[in-house]
Amino acid sequence: MVDFSASVKAMRSSAIRELLNTAVRPDIISFAGGMPNPSLFPIDEVDEIYRSLTVEQKQTGFQYGPTGGYPPLVEAIKAYLQKKGLPLEGNEVIITTGSLQAINIMSKIFIDPGDTVICEDPSFTGAVTVFLSYQANLVGVPLDADGMILDDFDRILDKTQKVKFVYITPNFHNPAGIIYSRERRLALLQRLQAKDLVLLEDDPYNELYFDPADCAVTTPLKTLGKEQTPICYTGSLSKIFGPGMRIGYLLAPKEIINKAELAKQSMDACTSTFTQVLACEFFRQGKLEPYLNRLRQAYKHRADIMLAALQQHMPADVRWNTPKGGFYVWVEMPEHIDANQVLKTSLAKGAIFVVGKAFDPLGQRNHFIRLSFSHMPEAKISRGVEIVAQAIGETL
Amino acid sequence: MVDFSASVKAMRSSAIRELLNTAVRPDIISFAGGMPNPSLFPIDEVDEIYRSLTVEQKQTGFQYGPTGGYPPLVEAIKAYLQKKGLPLEGNEVIITTGSLQAINIMSKIFIDPGDTVICEDPSFTGAVTVFLSYQANLVGVPLDADGMILDDFDRILDKTQKVKFVYITPNFHNPAGIIYSRERRLALLQRLQAKDLVLLEDDPYNELYFDPADCAVTTPLKTLGKEQTPICYTGSLSKIFGPGMRIGYLLAPKEIINKAELAKQSMDACTSTFTQVLACEFFRQGKLEPYLNRLRQAYKHRADIMLAALQQHMPADVRWNTPKGGFYVWVEMPEHIDANQVLKTSLAKGAIFVVGKAFDPLGQRNHFIRLSFSHMPEAKISRGVEIVAQAIGETL
Repeated sequence: MVDFSASVKAMRSSAIRELLNTAVRPDIISFAGGMPNPSLFPIDEVDEIYRSLTVEQKQTGFQYGPTGGYPPLVEAIKAYLQKKGLPLEGNEVIITTGSLQAINIMSKIFIDPGDTVICEDPSFTGAVTVFLSYQANLVGVPLDADGMILDDFDRILDKTQKVKFVYITPNFHNPAGIIYSRERRLALLQRLQAKDLVLLEDDPYNELYFDPADCAVTTPLKTLGKEQTPICYTGSLSKIFGPGMRIGYLLAPKEIINKAELAKQSMDACTSTFTQVLACEFFRQGKLEPYLNRLRQAYKHRADIMLAALQQHMPADVRWNTPKGGFYVWVEMPEHIDANQVLKTSLAKGAIFVVGKAFDPLGQRNHFIRLSFSHMPEAKISRGVEIVAQAIGETL
Repeated sequence: MVDFSASVKAMRSSAIRELLNTAVRPDIISFAGGMPNPSLFPIDEVDEIYRSLTVEQKQTGFQYGPTGGYPPLVEAIKAYLQKKGLPLEGNEVIITTGSLQAINIMSKIFIDPGDTVICEDPSFTGAVTVFLSYQANLVGVPLDADGMILDDFDRILDKTQKVKFVYITPNFHNPAGIIYSRERRLALLQRLQAKDLVLLEDDPYNELYFDPADCAVTTPLKTLGKEQTPICYTGSLSKIFGPGMRIGYLLAPKEIINKAELAKQSMDACTSTFTQVLACEFFRQGKLEPYLNRLRQAYKHRADIMLAALQQHMPADVRWNTPKGGFYVWVEMPEHIDANQVLKTSLAKGAIFVVGKAFDPLGQRNHFIRLSFSHMPEAKISRGVEIVAQAIGETL
């Protein structure tokens, strides 16, 4: 009767959003979602902004806006990116409905069924579901502590046809929690330039370093790359303003932004002008920097609590990274452990997380788990880690 | 160097959004965009709503929400649809980022390149650009004053393979301004049921009748259809709250909504929770009905001004419909006239509109123009029509 498209058969549900959609028992301690704790949102700031809006600004917020974005917000984002060293010349910015839409747009304008996307292994699960929905051939390059392992990258590139773009998240990687080293960034760039490959650089956690000294190590590849390299840089206000605003952006060569805008026209015409007006004032009224300082301290404190609890409760043969920012700790269990089994036990005890295979481009390897320290109230982090550790202990 | 997808080559820019993006000269009288005049937005109501929000509601608005929509808004929309007679049993509602996203989702889950979509001729240009971006084979069925001409529908259906769905906008058609008669609705439904065809019913102007007596003639096909017919009904808050909120919805059989939710997961994760919280309170606090009464009077008044001006200024061999609601007057010129030429002349004199071929699925026939009376200040409508009439006169 109902005859769906081939694309539907290729879709994989995001394991995380499934968890978010189902696990609503209020007593469950959730390390699953990569979302801020509600107490961390800039509500007082937005109350002030709302009170400051003129009737004209509100009218603009109610109205359709240009597909490329509310022009004053586009300008604010450009100024913000320029201040961070990102190149504007020859490039353009488009506002997207979250950076996930930027990833979707890139897929729409580049991927025909069977085309290859080279991503990381592990990789951001949201991006993986997008690429699969376009029937991409997804090839993952293993990560070490400094980024993609270049020998693997070279080997994969040699034997792979029709690579449309390479997708990486170089800062505070989700889920692996790593930062690409400067050397790895430059070496990867050199390879991309040699082959004239498009890079999609996804950088939603860039601002969320714990230590101001780490600010410099998060310099985007887009900043380091030569002008000729077609690097498409996407960021988001989800982690530094609020995900419910659904505002992301894409900075890319003009030729690509032109196509991106055409694609977005038929996706949602424009991103909510109402939330764009609020976001624009958040930048213009100088509310971002003080808020970031508050956030960095809050997340560092949460990470510290989680790391202390891991140290205290985890069985001996379990490993994890020490994040320097972002939202995540990536926990490696012995290879014979199935994270689904651990999740089942842990859920029964009252704590959840995301299993490793959600981040495997092939959806297989499953002896990792991702713990997010961003969402739970501080008081529940230690207890939650204890539960997860017990569940691992019982599965070992 | 940059190797775009086949989909990009099939994309057609929306003529309207191009106009909106470029024609920003403030002295131009624009009948182009299907957007409300800024003075008509419910700003006082939303100010009241914002002041009434609890901290918890604001926190929810800042956060990610379920892909299917903010649950209280989903419930409010369901109650609203049920009150209008739409069937909920066996169906489910998903909130979308404008109804354009609902059309995009339907395309994503149904259309493989080369599959057929049967639409109206003329048809909503936004939907046409979506279907083309999925490389659909688009076949238009001519309209008369009562809806799709059924002989043409039958003929097209007979000779067309792989029809994935039929797309119609039965009420206050954009651009044709017609309402499907009850007989035509029932006859079309019978044909859909006989062939087990999926219907995408797009109904954004349903509430915008000028005369309360016309409320009954806008009864959706979804309401008239048997339970078994897979009718997917999409509506929008763009015309009855504000397009900048980017909130639409899709009411469809559960099997289809399940796939739609999967597709939306990878498009933007969720629609802005912030604007969904505001919209939900707009329904819950009983602000919709009084606002609709105000809107209906305002649009009737604008339509009256435009119709009087058309009567006064248009050359003798130009025809137009008398709309009973919605935003548009569809103006037919003699067949040898090229609307682009008229637009060029009219733009030089200071008034713009959308040319007919933007609404032709094949992008050809061009002796119609669409005038929207919703956007301009009332005082400018007469003068704008006079300019357009002069431009036509000079082209004849």
